[in-house]
Amino acid sequence: MLKLYGFRVSNYYNMLKFAFLEKGIKFEEVHAMPNQETEFTSKSPMGKVPCIEVDGAYLSETGVILDYLEDISPSPALFPSDAFQKAKARELLRCCELYIELAARRHYGHLFFGEDINEAAVNEVKPVMEKGVRAISQLARFSPYLCGEELSYADIVAYHCFSYPVNVAEKIYDWDIISDIPGLKSWKETVAAREHCKTVDSEWLAALNEFQNS
Amino acid sequence: MLKLYGFRVSNYYNMLKFAFLEKGIKFEEVHAMPNQETEFTSKSPMGKVPCIEVDGAYLSETGVILDYLEDISPSPALFPSDAFQKAKARELLRCCELYIELAARRHYGHLFFGEDINEAAVNEVKPVMEKGVRAISQLARFSPYLCGEELSYADIVAYHCFSYPVNVAEKIYDWDIISDIPGLKSWKETVAAREHCKTVDSEWLAALNEFQNS
Repeated sequence: MLKLYGFRVSNYYNMLKFAFLEKGIKFEEVHAMPNQETEFTSKSPMGKVPCIEVDGAYLSETGVILDYLEDISPSPALFPSDAFQKAKARELLRCCELYIELAARRHYGHLFFGEDINEAAVNEVKPVMEKGVRAISQLARFSPYLCGEELSYADIVAYHCFSYPVNVAEKIYDWDIISDIPGLKSWKETVAAREHCKTVDSEWLAALNEFQNS
Repeated sequence: MLKLYGFRVSNYYNMLKFAFLEKGIKFEEVHAMPNQETEFTSKSPMGKVPCIEVDGAYLSETGVILDYLEDISPSPALFPSDAFQKAKARELLRCCELYIELAARRHYGHLFFGEDINEAAVNEVKPVMEKGVRAISQLARFSPYLCGEELSYADIVAYHCFSYPVNVAEKIYDWDIISDIPGLKSWKETVAAREHCKTVDSEWLAALNEFQNS
């Protein structure tokens, strides 16, 4: 059985968990925190979570793992079948990852771990997120899913890419990022109503509550 | 015919050009600079280069375009055929992109465009690149290519991910990053000796020379 290493507060961990559940791939959750000990970096070379274990071998990087799951378990497909539409789904997914989540991430230390505000990031991050918002508005279809009538990886990635950046936008920039992307609010509700999304979300929120009170 | 938009100084542009040539896909180079005009962002939503045009439709994000080329033109394959080995190639490629190129990129404004040094980046970037170097050392096979006996996308991406970061490491950190990854120097020479790499490199260096003297 595949093993998923990480912790339930991690949005990338939750992407993979959501994908495993949607694909019906059996997996075991193994609690692991990011760390730089050799024992862990031998599994996940950057010391990051999530990573997975497959027959004693390891794989890291969420996007890479999603592609791998699609290769080993093509049904239900989580990319459109047409090559160009598949590429458009990947483009949208990348925009959410690089220009929303990765950009906003520079404020997580301040927002979630009590660090000083990153002053350089205050100025550098917002223009990136603004372009990201524009790009996503342009690429997403919301019909009702991001790439059409079926759930795809674009939805799974986007859903968890927005979770913490929504707080960053609000608390650092007094910016309601969801309202700035017409269609995003009702799309979020559509995704959140899926059975497997509810499972991941309830376990995420329980872990987040525990984390915040620890 | 596919059109490749961008400019020859761009390392991401050169990755795609190298891939097009290795795959034997006919393409036309169209000169374009990154910009935020609607005319261009309607093609490339972040206003970035490179992007490609396919029958009047557009696609951006280098990694996405590489995957698309593999889908529409599977031979010669630029990923290993085994699903897990393919994923390991993607993992390595991601480490080069995110933890070497994207990290070092924060110094390009200072190094190549006469901007003030980004003081926050001086402290933030090096630990990321150091972990990137460790991850690449761990994942790369150098036999003689990064993922085995055949050229793969990992080589194409890595080759151009190191081009400018080598200068960043040297000039900002007095750090010879190539020597810190045993095997990287002779791997670079192996890649550089390929006919298509020579074409891309000679056109890159001519453009770089023109850019630096303009």
